[in-house]
Amino acid sequence: MAKKSLEICFSPAVFEAHADKEAIVVVIDVLRATSSICTAFANGAVEIIPVGSVEDAREMKSKGYLLAAERDGFVLGFADFGNSPFNFSPEKVRGKTVAYSTTNGTGIIKMAAESHDVVIGSYLNFSSLCNWLIKQDRKVLIVCAGWKDRFSLEDTICAGAFAERLINDGGFSTICDAVKASLDLWGLARKDLRGYIEKAAQRSRLRDKGLDDCIDYCHTFDVTAVIPVLRNGILTIL
Amino acid sequence: MAKKSLEICFSPAVFEAHADKEAIVVVIDVLRATSSICTAFANGAVEIIPVGSVEDAREMKSKGYLLAAERDGFVLGFADFGNSPFNFSPEKVRGKTVAYSTTNGTGIIKMAAESHDVVIGSYLNFSSLCNWLIKQDRKVLIVCAGWKDRFSLEDTICAGAFAERLINDGGFSTICDAVKASLDLWGLARKDLRGYIEKAAQRSRLRDKGLDDCIDYCHTFDVTAVIPVLRNGILTIL
Repeated sequence: MAKKSLEICFSPAVFEAHADKEAIVVVIDVLRATSSICTAFANGAVEIIPVGSVEDAREMKSKGYLLAAERDGFVLGFADFGNSPFNFSPEKVRGKTVAYSTTNGTGIIKMAAESHDVVIGSYLNFSSLCNWLIKQDRKVLIVCAGWKDRFSLEDTICAGAFAERLINDGGFSTICDAVKASLDLWGLARKDLRGYIEKAAQRSRLRDKGLDDCIDYCHTFDVTAVIPVLRNGILTIL
Repeated sequence: MAKKSLEICFSPAVFEAHADKEAIVVVIDVLRATSSICTAFANGAVEIIPVGSVEDAREMKSKGYLLAAERDGFVLGFADFGNSPFNFSPEKVRGKTVAYSTTNGTGIIKMAAESHDVVIGSYLNFSSLCNWLIKQDRKVLIVCAGWKDRFSLEDTICAGAFAERLINDGGFSTICDAVKASLDLWGLARKDLRGYIEKAAQRSRLRDKGLDDCIDYCHTFDVTAVIPVLRNGILTIL
């Protein structure tokens, strides 16, 4: 394993082709899971427990956990709230442990658990996470959560932004075609990031459901310095 | 299923998320399987039998078939020849049935067999295949063979070229992020296609093995009008 090598994986379905127990995995689900997780910790949450299935989410609620849970953008009926970062307000999450289950983002966090480390990436904690990754002197694998195993434009653009910083400022190298494509797409998108994201399918899905109030916020760099990390199956902050 | 809708799948590992029995699947493995298949038919091959495993390839050879078979670019010892399009010369393949097994390309052909049709795409048969797809008035799913389930730049660029033609000249529409990314990447690559492909990992792999004499040829538009199609598990031409 080359130190400071970089790979990007465009779908949880491809994770096994990239999996490396020595790598640090960065999970990205810009709209909205990883943006929401960063927001929750920025607002004082103590722990977030990623929950895979709807059944497991129901069980966590019955055990008394504060539960954030959605499928296809809709809040599960028995949950306390859904997947918008604005749900994870200081009033709701400060000092709390939150159980969290989403369509795409939380599944890949659990899937990557055997890696050296699993951290949560978004625009919101971009510089802080980049600086930490650069200091680790390890292989980094960025995993885009995608949409039901499909390629997602907004996660890829964010992955490209991370790749640019890690290569240009962090001494990372790559032979991964997905990194090269992400860099080129980020190069096209960066001039008008919000305009570019208009063509993403997830942007349309959120608009159709009236859930698109968070798009600008989720594409804002460096709102917080938190670095959420998986420890024994539970997210906390470094 | 919307008629004339277009999707692109970047990896065989993601195929199930896109699979649709009503769709026509276009398999693309520019370097080198689908370029070689088009060349074989252009040079007079009658049938090509896609073979998945090395064991199955050995069995086909023992049954007396002409066998093209490689793994990771290397010709299997018991095969007649490997995966370069230049191997499929008129002298070798005219009038013949060829059994063919490769690292990436032939597996996805078999995986897609339940679709409405499976056809073979490359730059070599680009316009002919586009014209046929436009006439079918059906959903089209382009599947990039990739590299061991990973994203491949050269297949994506070719898929983007197909997408541009189908959308601009054929009345296709899309809500697929992978189509939008492929179009943007093709837009960057088209100005200097051969220069752009220099950064693809597969380009380096082929150079390292001295197998890169076919790169220019595999990126040449419209060398042949053949449209290879899967019929009862066997490739023939329309």
